Amino acid sequence: MLTNLQFDESSLTQRLMNFRREFHRYPEAAWREFFTTSRIAGHLEALGYTLCFSDEIIHRDAIMGRDETLVAQAQQRAMVWGADERYMTRMNGITGVGAILDTGKPGPVIAMRFDIDAVEVMESQNDSHRPRFLGFASLEPGVTHACGHDAHSSIGLGIAEILAANTSQMTGTIKLLFQPAEEGCRAGKAIAESGWLDDVDYLFAAHIGMNVPSGTLVCDPQHFLCSSKFDLHFTGKPAHAGIEPNAGHNALAAACTAVTQMLAIPRHRDGMTRVNVGQMHAGDGRNVIPANAVLMGETRGENRELNAYMFQQVETIAKAAGQMHNVQVEIRPQGEAIGLENDVEMVNLLERLGKPSGFADVMREKDFGASEDAGYLVDRVQANGGKAVYCLIGSDLTAGHHNGDFDIDESRMLPAVRLFLNAISSLQRESQLNDASQ
Amino acid sequence: MLTNLQFDESSLTQRLMNFRREFHRYPEAAWREFFTTSRIAGHLEALGYTLCFSDEIIHRDAIMGRDETLVAQAQQRAMVWGADERYMTRMNGITGVGAILDTGKPGPVIAMRFDIDAVEVMESQNDSHRPRFLGFASLEPGVTHACGHDAHSSIGLGIAEILAANTSQMTGTIKLLFQPAEEGCRAGKAIAESGWLDDVDYLFAAHIGMNVPSGTLVCDPQHFLCSSKFDLHFTGKPAHAGIEPNAGHNALAAACTAVTQMLAIPRHRDGMTRVNVGQMHAGDGRNVIPANAVLMGETRGENRELNAYMFQQVETIAKAAGQMHNVQVEIRPQGEAIGLENDVEMVNLLERLGKPSGFADVMREKDFGASEDAGYLVDRVQANGGKAVYCLIGSDLTAGHHNGDFDIDESRMLPAVRLFLNAISSLQRESQLNDASQ
Amino acid sequence: MLTNLQFDESSLTQRLMNFRREFHRYPEAAWREFFTTSRIAGHLEALGYTLCFSDEIIHRDAIMGRDETLVAQAQQRAMVWGADERYMTRMNGITGVGAILDTGKPGPVIAMRFDIDAVEVMESQNDSHRPRFLGFASLEPGVTHACGHDAHSSIGLGIAEILAANTSQMTGTIKLLFQPAEEGCRAGKAIAESGWLDDVDYLFAAHIGMNVPSGTLVCDPQHFLCSSKFDLHFTGKPAHAGIEPNAGHNALAAACTAVTQMLAIPRHRDGMTRVNVGQMHAGDGRNVIPANAVLMGETRGENRELNAYMFQQVETIAKAAGQMHNVQVEIRPQGEAIGLENDVEMVNLLERLGKPSGFADVMREKDFGASEDAGYLVDRVQANGGKAVYCLIGSDLTAGHHNGDFDIDESRMLPAVRLFLNAISSLQRESQLNDASQ
Amino acid sequence: MLTNLQFDESSLTQRLMNFRREFHRYPEAAWREFFTTSRIAGHLEALGYTLCFSDEIIHRDAIMGRDETLVAQAQQRAMVWGADERYMTRMNGITGVGAILDTGKPGPVIAMRFDIDAVEVMESQNDSHRPRFLGFASLEPGVTHACGHDAHSSIGLGIAEILAANTSQMTGTIKLLFQPAEEGCRAGKAIAESGWLDDVDYLFAAHIGMNVPSGTLVCDPQHFLCSSKFDLHFTGKPAHAGIEPNAGHNALAAACTAVTQMLAIPRHRDGMTRVNVGQMHAGDGRNVIPANAVLMGETRGENRELNAYMFQQVETIAKAAGQMHNVQVEIRPQGEAIGLENDVEMVNLLERLGKPSGFADVMREKDFGASEDAGYLVDRVQANGGKAVYCLIGSDLTAGHHNGDFDIDESRMLPAVRLFLNAISSLQRESQLNDASQ
Repeated sequence: MLTNLQFDESSLTQRLMNFRREFHRYPEAAWREFFTTSRIAGHLEALGYTLCFSDEIIHRDAIMGRDETLVAQAQQRAMVWGADERYMTRMNGITGVGAILDTGKPGPVIAMRFDIDAVEVMESQNDSHRPRFLGFASLEPGVTHACGHDAHSSIGLGIAEILAANTSQMTGTIKLLFQPAEEGCRAGKAIAESGWLDDVDYLFAAHIGMNVPSGTLVCDPQHFLCSSKFDLHFTGKPAHAGIEPNAGHNALAAACTAVTQMLAIPRHRDGMTRVNVGQMHAGDGRNVIPANAVLMGETRGENRELNAYMFQQVETIAKAAGQMHNVQVEIRPQGEAIGLENDVEMVNLLERLGKPSGFADVMREKDFGASEDAGYLVDRVQANGGKAVYCLIGSDLTAGHHNGDFDIDESRMLPAVRLFLNAISSLQRESQLNDASQ
Repeated sequence: MLTNLQFDESSLTQRLMNFRREFHRYPEAAWREFFTTSRIAGHLEALGYTLCFSDEIIHRDAIMGRDETLVAQAQQRAMVWGADERYMTRMNGITGVGAILDTGKPGPVIAMRFDIDAVEVMESQNDSHRPRFLGFASLEPGVTHACGHDAHSSIGLGIAEILAANTSQMTGTIKLLFQPAEEGCRAGKAIAESGWLDDVDYLFAAHIGMNVPSGTLVCDPQHFLCSSKFDLHFTGKPAHAGIEPNAGHNALAAACTAVTQMLAIPRHRDGMTRVNVGQMHAGDGRNVIPANAVLMGETRGENRELNAYMFQQVETIAKAAGQMHNVQVEIRPQGEAIGLENDVEMVNLLERLGKPSGFADVMREKDFGASEDAGYLVDRVQANGGKAVYCLIGSDLTAGHHNGDFDIDESRMLPAVRLFLNAISSLQRESQLNDASQ
Repeated sequence: MLTNLQFDESSLTQRLMNFRREFHRYPEAAWREFFTTSRIAGHLEALGYTLCFSDEIIHRDAIMGRDETLVAQAQQRAMVWGADERYMTRMNGITGVGAILDTGKPGPVIAMRFDIDAVEVMESQNDSHRPRFLGFASLEPGVTHACGHDAHSSIGLGIAEILAANTSQMTGTIKLLFQPAEEGCRAGKAIAESGWLDDVDYLFAAHIGMNVPSGTLVCDPQHFLCSSKFDLHFTGKPAHAGIEPNAGHNALAAACTAVTQMLAIPRHRDGMTRVNVGQMHAGDGRNVIPANAVLMGETRGENRELNAYMFQQVETIAKAAGQMHNVQVEIRPQGEAIGLENDVEMVNLLERLGKPSGFADVMREKDFGASEDAGYLVDRVQANGGKAVYCLIGSDLTAGHHNGDFDIDESRMLPAVRLFLNAISSLQRESQLNDASQ
Repeated sequence: MLTNLQFDESSLTQRLMNFRREFHRYPEAAWREFFTTSRIAGHLEALGYTLCFSDEIIHRDAIMGRDETLVAQAQQRAMVWGADERYMTRMNGITGVGAILDTGKPGPVIAMRFDIDAVEVMESQNDSHRPRFLGFASLEPGVTHACGHDAHSSIGLGIAEILAANTSQMTGTIKLLFQPAEEGCRAGKAIAESGWLDDVDYLFAAHIGMNVPSGTLVCDPQHFLCSSKFDLHFTGKPAHAGIEPNAGHNALAAACTAVTQMLAIPRHRDGMTRVNVGQMHAGDGRNVIPANAVLMGETRGENRELNAYMFQQVETIAKAAGQMHNVQVEIRPQGEAIGLENDVEMVNLLERLGKPSGFADVMREKDFGASEDAGYLVDRVQANGGKAVYCLIGSDLTAGHHNGDFDIDESRMLPAVRLFLNAISSLQRESQLNDASQ
């Protein structure tokens, strides 16, 4: 144990589990995490952290994939569940909370990011599903923590407690970001653009699971895909399909044309690209030329240029499909991920601390192969001269991410807490040594 | 006034209005008319009619466009609204009721058909909408009597009352059919195949409105379109759209291919054809190759051969679109209309009785230009040697059929009742004269 | 026989046959009738007619479907066949000839139109094909008179001879138009716009065959379809399909999109519409993103508005398909037909003269069901206050029009000559009587 | 100079140039190399080689992309150009020639393959194009040696001469294969399956140019793409597009559907895939539902499984597109390339001999990124226990391969001859040493 931070591990283990199970019972999807934010804020404020909400941590103009109607419903439900009205007011419709612990002593600004949203998946009704037979299954049909963000939030609170209890031994400033709307890569850009991380020297982020087994730490995951999530809204003109089909402007036909053509965007010389239309909903009646259609889609590329190529083609196709059918088309961005490149010395730090923190196996690289909006945060910190790292905390899973049977190995939260505390200690000590040597 | 049937017109006018407004408040869409059927059955039984339900009037195997889940919800709601449990039991899940009045005297079997279902349209919230400011607007959001079947049901009950009160002066048998699920042409075939109308000598049916002004009777509407309503269900295989797009079987892509190709079915030498896909719903997530898609469509033709040509092409296209994308396709019939040809002597009878029944204007022919599943009933009666007529009862409307602002001219129900009573009297007298002369 | 024009019928019969068989041997497709024009011009000039060529009878800017390369080849071939260089010079690249016979006496201007082009069809190689075993089969592989315009031209020359021989008994002016490029409706508009027919009081035109048997005259054929013929040229950008598919702009893909969508132009409330893409030629290599594509298509409608609706949709679709694939699109009109409405008194005239001219059966109306660019000429004459008629001269056929086995009943040319001579006489006499009575 | 084979370099240089310029003047595309084969055969026979033709070197059933009509035209032209009738007879319609030199002494069987076909590209008319101003430009419009196979053939003849003149100093057997139809990967499979190479111990093949500059040798090019070339033939049923569009079976519409869907074959998890439709030709007239369509396409994949995935999807789509439009579909293979893996010791041999043979720069690896049907030959030799290598002979080019302005650096043929002679000497000596040491 490198750290000089003191805590009772068995007590922390219990608290991490309690946190996680409460979050699991009250899952809230992206931009709807009002109860979750309220609970986290309550703990943090009690620990003495200074809290930041809403415009302080999120630039409204850069928000993607947020639906006012769903937000309003989520606010009502959060009040029913017992959210704190003070925090509801401070959130002002925008979820998530940032917490600052200023030691008053000179030292680095170290930030950690924990994402808090659940996914819109129906949790398993199977009796063998642990959250079910242990009684902490989701109270909200169709929403569940099937990606492990309940664990991320809990790890964050665990770290917050230890840090608050050890302020005297620390230096510099700690910033803990409990981020909303990671799913669909909807919030990263807006958080980065808020500037809240602009003074950060070191940023840590992590994901539990991700096909990494319990006991393993991956310090430098590779191949974060760039991606653009979008909705296409087609608006035509209805007409009676029997009486005067010529009078309609067929939004469904335009949408089908767009889908077929988007799937046929040429492959690119420079590498991997992807496009998908995951959903279509169109029309209101059987005998009416359909006047509306919505597509939900995404592009990906193994670098920014490739994703930009794909998305530009989507735009061209959507526009032309509209013109072809005399239908209005609107492209509404719903999320965006850029790549993510860890800083080598941060990777080295984690690699060094892995085993002492309790990981049996420490891997340097492993393919990530998905998208993460932490990329925006990492990019912002690095652009301002800071350093950042995103790692994977191994956990055996009962089913894949976003599957209703997903469950984590709760015992894996503790080593994650140890790892980050050790990293903080190490960086603070290093900073003191540097200052002393100057 | 040709009839010898006695009734107080002002009292009847009031009762017709009361019936209509109650039906209007409790609208139920196709195959969900449990409360409506229960209310009608109560009146008819009280009047002494013998009632027929379920398999007696409807051949289950020929039912189209009926959804068990929606039916179960409708049954619950009907009980809440106060449906009679005895009738609920007799219906056994299948709405509609047939009523028989046997005079015990020799004479013709005369049938009348009244359709009772509402449409899935949101009723106008406008204060100037009469059902709203007079307080009989729909109690069920998203469903309303915007096609006038509330008036049809009321006319049926009005006729039932007068006939029951005048049994001694009548001969032969009267059969009143309160038909469910006319919208979408979903029940006609199943009723015809039940055989309930097989002994009918004369069948009458009518529609109120249909662009015919108040005071006008159209005796022989022309050009009933043949039509097939269908749902296409595509079932593929999901896969992560980023990680292994090749592993999915894309149901949405198959559906889009099918739509595009169906719209391109060649025009036909022999006359007017139509095809429409009014709705598509596909996929569950943004980043998953969509594994399911449902299309709701219809074909039309100005005769049976033309509609058959169109529907056969739809089948070919749907099947091939499935094979192209390695996706299962199922075609589920949702409704069907064949043509409708009135018998000349029935048209002549209505033409003769129109003015004496109170119509200011009697037109022989007018384009219908839509579909009606009464065609199946007319066809069945004619196939068994009977005669049939379907006419239009003029009514000024506040908006087109299936529009939320639709409202009828309630005063137009009375002349319809008179017309059919006169027709019954006339046919019964004629039958007696024929018998006497033999 | 009403006419006072004198001629030896058996000699004329022989000459008509000789003309027809020569035209048949030397078939020339649309805008390539140099030898044909030269031969006709030679006869007409010898008879004393004043000849008009090129811009005198055809407005260049309104020419459609003319290919300079094919024209140049045809000019060379015509010279090989023995065309008269003087006429080649006067044609100046534009085929067809107008002939004027001015009697010097006051009287009506009467015009007749005869179309002279062959079709691009391979003539039957079958020994039983009459032109083959009698030795007057086409000398040009792939081109033949399979539409009967060889007969039309012959009838025109026959009439020209009789008229020239009887000038003293005639009044007013005769204008004989030997029109090029009727196939594909390519010349009608350009001739109309030249103004050559603007002084015409009466215009006659006819077609032989058209499913009308030998001995029958149809005076007023119905339902001439409006039609637009067009080529679509797509120009993209080539790229190696293996190395950098993303660098290409795929003209073939754009053309396929356009085809699929054009076939799906919605049917129209107001009546019959048609669209066809009859040919596509695209690309140069197997492994190159195709950078060029040409579509040859047509729209039709049972009236001008319906054809305009179809053509406007084609334009919209073509343009959008180009934008979708980043490909240039050019629409090149290739032909156009408008409707054709005969004048009642002209129809009456033919009806009266039919039997006296030798037709055993005279029908007033029969469905035409195709397109004719005579519509432009008729329309122009009528717009200037003249009257016009287009009739069908029955002829048993050995195969349908545009079929390689097509052959006419040559004996049917004589009654056509008689009919038109009688009509001219009748109109001239009528004009004299009118003048006298004033 | 490692070789003990004697020859006059300046004389050889001249002869190589003469050969190359003659081949360049008389270019013949794939399966049409009758004159080329005849000329090569003449030289080889004069040098004493035993010649093998037709079924001896090519398995007819595995031939792809050969058109009988084009072959017949090419045979006529070859006779006009002066092909030797004896070789024409021995070819029996199948081009290419194999030559055997048996030293009568024990030793290895060493084979070399030279491809001889030209490409269907129009040669530059530009005066600065060297073959033009030096007077050896293509005599056949639309065909030219724009891929360098004229040089390959010349190198082959050069080697043949030296070997024949030095038989006494050699051991074992030499087999020289002058292969037809390499373009489009049409002959490789058929040659492999003939078994002619089954006794070969060592196989050499090479390509000039390929973005490798003059003076450089690439010993082990990487990433030969697997590819399938195919034609799709759609056969429908014609119908008059105006009169009865419903009666047609639209082959063009089916082809367009197939194209659009083939371009949308999902990308594959495992790596690079490609699909292209390079050409479409469909239909005969403007106003006829097109009854025929031909597509020319290809798939590629970075390994056999990926190419098989693509081609299987093409088959599925083509078949379904046919069913959708009631059109017959036939897939005709036109060419096929599998991967190509050099043997390490052969690569080492070339690497060692490169500089002594006159190459200034010797690279081991470079991306090939295209397809080569030498893969079939290499695969066959390796399957029978032999070893093979395919290398790149650098040459500055005036334009890219398959471009009309393409020209090679003729001085680069000599080092290629030296390299292969050295390799033969080296292998024969090594074999003798091995035998001696046993």
